[in-house]
Formats: sequence, structure tokens, C-alpha cells
Amino acid sequence: MDTADLGLPVEVPSTALFTDQYELTMLQGALRAGTAGRRSVFEVFTRRLPSGRRYGVVAGTGRVLDAVENFRFDDDVLGFLRERGIVDEETLAWLAGYRFTGDIWGYPEGEVYFPGSPVMRVEGTFAECVLLETVVLSILNHDSAIASAASRMSAAAGDRPLIEMGARRTHELAAVAASRAAYIGGFATTSDLAAGFRYGIPTVGTSAHAFTLLHDSERDAFRAQVDSLGRGTTLLVDTYDVAEAVRTAVEVAGTELGAVRIDSGDLLLVAHRVRQQLDELGATGTKIVVTSDLDEYAIASLAAAPVDAYGVGTQLVTGSGHPTSAMVYKLVARAESDGPQAPLVPVAKRSTGGKTSIGGRKWAARRLDAEGTAEAEVVGAGPVPPELAGRQLLAELVKGGETVAREPLDAARDRHAAARAGLPMSATQLSRGEPVLPTEYVHVGSGS
Amino acid sequence: MDTADLGLPVEVPSTALFTDQYELTMLQGALRAGTAGRRSVFEVFTRRLPSGRRYGVVAGTGRVLDAVENFRFDDDVLGFLRERGIVDEETLAWLAGYRFTGDIWGYPEGEVYFPGSPVMRVEGTFAECVLLETVVLSILNHDSAIASAASRMSAAAGDRPLIEMGARRTHELAAVAASRAAYIGGFATTSDLAAGFRYGIPTVGTSAHAFTLLHDSERDAFRAQVDSLGRGTTLLVDTYDVAEAVRTAVEVAGTELGAVRIDSGDLLLVAHRVRQQLDELGATGTKIVVTSDLDEYAIASLAAAPVDAYGVGTQLVTGSGHPTSAMVYKLVARAESDGPQAPLVPVAKRSTGGKTSIGGRKWAARRLDAEGTAEAEVVGAGPVPPELAGRQLLAELVKGGETVAREPLDAARDRHAAARAGLPMSATQLSRGEPVLPTEYVHVGSGS
Repeated sequence: MDTADLGLPVEVPSTALFTDQYELTMLQGALRAGTAGRRSVFEVFTRRLPSGRRYGVVAGTGRVLDAVENFRFDDDVLGFLRERGIVDEETLAWLAGYRFTGDIWGYPEGEVYFPGSPVMRVEGTFAECVLLETVVLSILNHDSAIASAASRMSAAAGDRPLIEMGARRTHELAAVAASRAAYIGGFATTSDLAAGFRYGIPTVGTSAHAFTLLHDSERDAFRAQVDSLGRGTTLLVDTYDVAEAVRTAVEVAGTELGAVRIDSGDLLLVAHRVRQQLDELGATGTKIVVTSDLDEYAIASLAAAPVDAYGVGTQLVTGSGHPTSAMVYKLVARAESDGPQAPLVPVAKRSTGGKTSIGGRKWAARRLDAEGTAEAEVVGAGPVPPELAGRQLLAELVKGGETVAREPLDAARDRHAAARAGLPMSATQLSRGEPVLPTEYVHVGSGS
Repeated sequence: MDTADLGLPVEVPSTALFTDQYELTMLQGALRAGTAGRRSVFEVFTRRLPSGRRYGVVAGTGRVLDAVENFRFDDDVLGFLRERGIVDEETLAWLAGYRFTGDIWGYPEGEVYFPGSPVMRVEGTFAECVLLETVVLSILNHDSAIASAASRMSAAAGDRPLIEMGARRTHELAAVAASRAAYIGGFATTSDLAAGFRYGIPTVGTSAHAFTLLHDSERDAFRAQVDSLGRGTTLLVDTYDVAEAVRTAVEVAGTELGAVRIDSGDLLLVAHRVRQQLDELGATGTKIVVTSDLDEYAIASLAAAPVDAYGVGTQLVTGSGHPTSAMVYKLVARAESDGPQAPLVPVAKRSTGGKTSIGGRKWAARRLDAEGTAEAEVVGAGPVPPELAGRQLLAELVKGGETVAREPLDAARDRHAAARAGLPMSATQLSRGEPVLPTEYVHVGSGS
């Protein structure tokens, strides 16, 4: 069963209102001025990584494709805009027929990015492109933030699996997108059933303290769980006394007990004690799952502990201190005049107060050193140097309004693992540092 | 037109999968053990406020009521659970008939809370209550984090209106909930059309740099905007040179120009210069809107600047450093045995590793001093002292499965303003501090 075909009960039939009002009023202004049809190039990029981070991970691309396909103004939406007087009738008529007919190129999902990387490029008329700004940024800013944190955690965890269990710490639908992004970043499973349903991510579960407290004794609770879910289940052992719980767990489930979960205390110390106890009881195959406000640093600190899997919640879904990615969606080139054949000219904000950007329709390529390790993110607005032609990063995602680059989620997950492996080793150091690749600009500002 | 009745295109027909897998497997275990029907009391509370914060703001209550009403297992969902083998047929049959029939009490939306405040209490059978844990926490943790940040910002802004414009910085549906929470916390308007559509929040918009860059000159862009949107519009003046832009803006729109927006640079300095220039040009009624990574501290620092409104994005939707609220959903009491009339006994996790909680079904009341200012959050598990009976905080929200406390969003917004005004003055100091009210416990652990 391809669960994605079922559609989550919250499937989004229209994404047109995930939009800041000014996108629509700018459209109205441009329609009135006759400039709405000017061919335009918008690029998504970030000026900086979160402080101390060495790379970012592109995630959300597949969701952007869904959002663009479903960006339509139906009667309910048009009625709302009319009732509120947000745009005029001419604009409403234009919106009623809206369908994105342009082109989208982007870094494929799971790819890494750096300051200035043009992670997505949206081309078409000003009118059709400007409307997409808010929803494209919402998705990329959120999902990339989560995937970037997930990647650091999965690097720290090494071969040990990571379980995403943050649903309760973030908005219920952000949680589903977070599970998806975490999977791309290297997590193995999720506790979030909606993420399993919508994206086919493997789901897992253990037990909560409430289940133990419901029963007249911990033994009763363990027996109820093992009777129902089998000896392979994971028993939560820190409701009362951990040592006693471990003893009871093995008595109830036998030495085939699947795993125990530790959710509080000094995990390093407790994991060692529990491992020793399990081994003494003969439960040498019983695994230890730890949870409790883990982040990439806590995971790394447990590298030498006898831990078999990590469950991560809060810090994953909040991007481990960086819940958003600071990506912006900027007009970088537009037709010189109103004619359909008018050449593109680069444009950019130029005021001295900051937030300037680099004009021109850009390509990007990752240059490798002699050993095949990445050494620079090269971004240019002119012709691509021949030696970089085969290392270009932008892929065609939408062509003339049609999505051309759907892929299964595992493709993005595998791509991320490969992209991270291609970076210099210092990429996965957890200590604060500079971006692991410098961004080099060539021919920028020259237009295209 | 009551836009809420239209339903957002992303209206959620079922919320049953916004659930961690273990809620369902615990249900299965309890059904098998015969304990699923034990009367249970779960409470939502936080052990601590974000470091340095003086109060929290309850938000999301209305969304919880929606989520509970729509928590149903339809055929698609049951098919998914069966296909994945997540629970057995007995449990699936039970889920097919699921409908929450218990009671929910809670702090009314917009109320303030402190460590230990029982902000929501869910009572019913273990089975029907345990399933709601994940989605209840998702909503309250997210929405309360946003409202808590919004409240600090609105306190800092004083009488100046705050515009919520963070949609592009967070998940597209989290953004809609964030607008709602921000409104409760004191924001005046939002840029997010979906929030206007779904919750009737007033929407506003200005213009982006792209609109200026699209046109052959800043003058062309301003003229296009004023021609289309009228002189009352807000012109963005920092694409090229601010002083020149302000001059052009008044030339194009006249002295009736509604407002100018400054989105970069030293806002304090630039606002003063722009105000002086506008006044010199005779545009004394033209307002100044500032945006650009504002948080409550930046807002406060502009208190003496000639600023008329603040637009806040990133820091609002990310909770100004605290994107989640650390609320937990804990079993605090359950029937002593399986009979329907069995008395409740308090229960609590007791291991030494931390995360302990206080057992017993609790009430809460806010004690006032002689001047009528709040002086303590009193939480108890026994009888309510007579002098506090009239100051109780928990209100009935759901009775026997029926929602009994729907209210317009403005009621929550007004309640928050009143609740904050009733706190000691130091509540709205931005500096780091302790919770402004101590939480006092009486009779806890004695059951009820």
C-alpha cells in the first residue's frame, strides 16, 4: 500500500491562502501598472547559517512541489478576498484563473547548502512568481531547519538509530513535516502516526509512565504490556526504581525482552548500570533506548555508553536552537521592459542598511579537490566554467508549470547521506565553526 | 460573514493520527489487561517557565476543543493501522467507535499560568483520555509559546499596534496557529491571509523590495502602488536610498500618504530621520512602520523613537527563543480498581531521576492581595479553601464529551489583557526574572 496515496485527513486542497497579504496587493499594483507580466527570476537563499553551524540541509522541496500544484483560488477563497476588500475585481478575476506556469529549479532535497547557495529558483511572470513567496519560504525555512538539526544528531549518533518523537512539542502539522525532514536528515523512525500515514516513515512506540501508574503495580503494567505486545516490546523502567524495574521486566518478559527505555536521570550512568544488570540477568540481547531532552551534544556524550537507540523530541522539532532557516525569496532578475522577449536584467536591493543581495539569475556548483572532497560552493551569474559544468547543483523541478522531479522520500534521505559524506570531515564536528565550504562568487551581477 | 464557518481549505476532518504510536499500543495493553476503563485524571502543566520568563500565556484551548471533537478513526485511518500491524483487531474495533465522552476543565484561553498551574485537566476512562495526549500537547505547547512571546512584545509596544508577519518563517499551518496565538497575546493584525480567513483576524500588508525592483524606477513603483491601493497605502522606502525614497514617496502620494515602512538599518536612527523628513515635507500624518527581526527587546528599545507600528516575524513565530512550552500531560489520579464506582487515588512518577510530578486531581486559584493584585497561584488537591472559592481558575470546557465553552477569539484576547493587568507590575519587565507569582501547594497528594 502506498500510504501517500491515501492522503492524510488533513491533506491540503488549496495552499493559496498561506500567503502574506502584500503578495496579492503587489499583484494588483503590477496588474494596474502593466508590469505584472514581466519575466522575473526569484531565488531562495540564506545570507548566513545559524551561528556556529557548518552546513545546512535542504528539506521541504517535495512539499513545495505539492504546495505549488495546489495553489489555486477557489470560490471560498475569492469570496473571502472580495468580502474583506483585499484586492479589486480585476485582480480577483486574474486569481480565479491562477495556475503556476513557470519553471522551478532547485537544490535536490537532502542536498547540503551554504550561505548564498541558490537553493531554489522560481521563474515566470512577476505575477505568478511573487504569489508563491510566502508558502515556499514557510516550507523551506521550517523543513530545512529541522533537517539541519537532524543531520547533526544523526552524525553524532553514528550507526545507532534515532527515533523522532517530538510531535507533542510542536504544532500538530509542523510535527508531521518535522518527521519527514528528520527522516531526510538521517532519523530512522518516528512516533508520529500521521507521518507514517502521510509519508510512509516507519513508526515505533514504547510506553509512558501513565501506563505503569494506571496499574496496581509495575509488575502488572509490564505483564499487561508483554501479554499484549509480546516480549519484543520496550518497557519503560524509570517510573519508580530503575533497578527494581529492570529486574521485574526480565522476570515478566524473560531474557528475550526487546528493550528497556530510560527517560530521566543521568543517562550515561543509568545506561551503564542497566546494561550491567541486564547482562547479569542474562538479557544480553535486550536493548537500551534513551530519551529525555536529547540534542546532538547529549547524543555525542553518550557515544561510549551502552545505548542502542536514541529518542529525540523537543530539540529535533525546534531545530536544536534554530527553528527557522533565515531563507529569503528575492527578485534577482527581471525583464528590462514589458515585451515578452525583453532581456533579463539583474536587480538587487542596494540600500546601505543591510539585507542587500546579489542580483542576477544564478547557477551553483560544488568544486571538489583532488581527492574528490568538496572544497567550495561556487555561485555564478554568468556562463558556467566548463570544469564545473558536471558539478552543478540546481535540478529542474517544475517545467512550464508541470512537476518533473517527484521522488520517493528515501531518495532524499540517501542523497543527504551522500552529500554529507562528500564534505570535509570537519563538517560533522559539533563545535561551533564557520561554514565548512566557502562560497565563491563568479561573474555575479553580470546578468544572464 | 462569519469566515470561521467557511472553514479553511485545510480544515482538519480527523485529528486521530496526530498521535504518538504508544498511545495506541498502551490502549491495546490496557484493553487486554482490563484496565482501560479505569476512571483517570490527566493534567497538563509545566514544571518550569522558559528561563527568565515571568509568566506564561495559555493559548490553543479553542483549537484543542476542535481537535477533540474531530478525533475519530475513519476507515482510511483504521486501514493504515491494520496494514502496519500497529494494534490488534480488538483495539481497532474499539477505535472505530471512539468518541471522547469525558470532561475537560482548563484555564480559559488567554489566562496566564505559572509552574505547576494545571492548565488543563482531562477526565474519563484511561482509554479515552490517553489517546488525546499527543494532540493536546502539540496544540498547547505550540500556541502557548507563541502567545507568551506575543504578550511580552505587546507589553513592550504599549499602545502601538503590532503586526504579525512571521508566516514565511515557520510551517505554513503553524503560522496560522501562530497568528491566532499572537492575536490573543495582544497583536493587532496579521499579514497571513489564512489566519484572516480561518479566525477572522484583521489582515494587513505593505509592499516588498521585489515590487520596487520590478519597476524601472522607485518612482514608477510607488506610483503603481498608490494608483492601485490609494494614498493610504504603506510604501517601502529602503530599497535604494531612504531619504530619496521618502522624498519620492511624498511627491507621488502627497502628504496624505498613509505610512512608510523601514525594513533594514539602524531603526532607531532611521526612524528619527524619516520622521523629521516627513514632517518637513508636510506629511505629518504619515506613519512609520518598522520591521526587521524585531523582538520584545528591540521593540522596547524603540519606545522613544517616532514609530507608529511594529511588524514582527521570526521572533514571534519562534516564541522569541522559546518555541515550545514544556507542558506535559500526566496521569495524576485513577480509580483504585476496575469498578465504575471505585474511588480515585493519586498517582505520580517517583523515580529519583527527575521529572517527578504531584499526584492528585487538582484545583487552582489566584490569590489577590489587599489592593486586588495577584500574589500567588494556589494549587491544591483537596477541598478548596472558602476564601479562594471565588478565585478558581479552571473552567468547564467539555462536559460528557460535549463542548460547553466555545467563545470568540476576542474573548481570549480581552481575557489575556485583563489577566496580565492583574499581575504585579514586575510581570512585564523584560529582564530575566523569577515567575512573578509563586506557586503554593495545599493538600497535594491527598487525593480528591
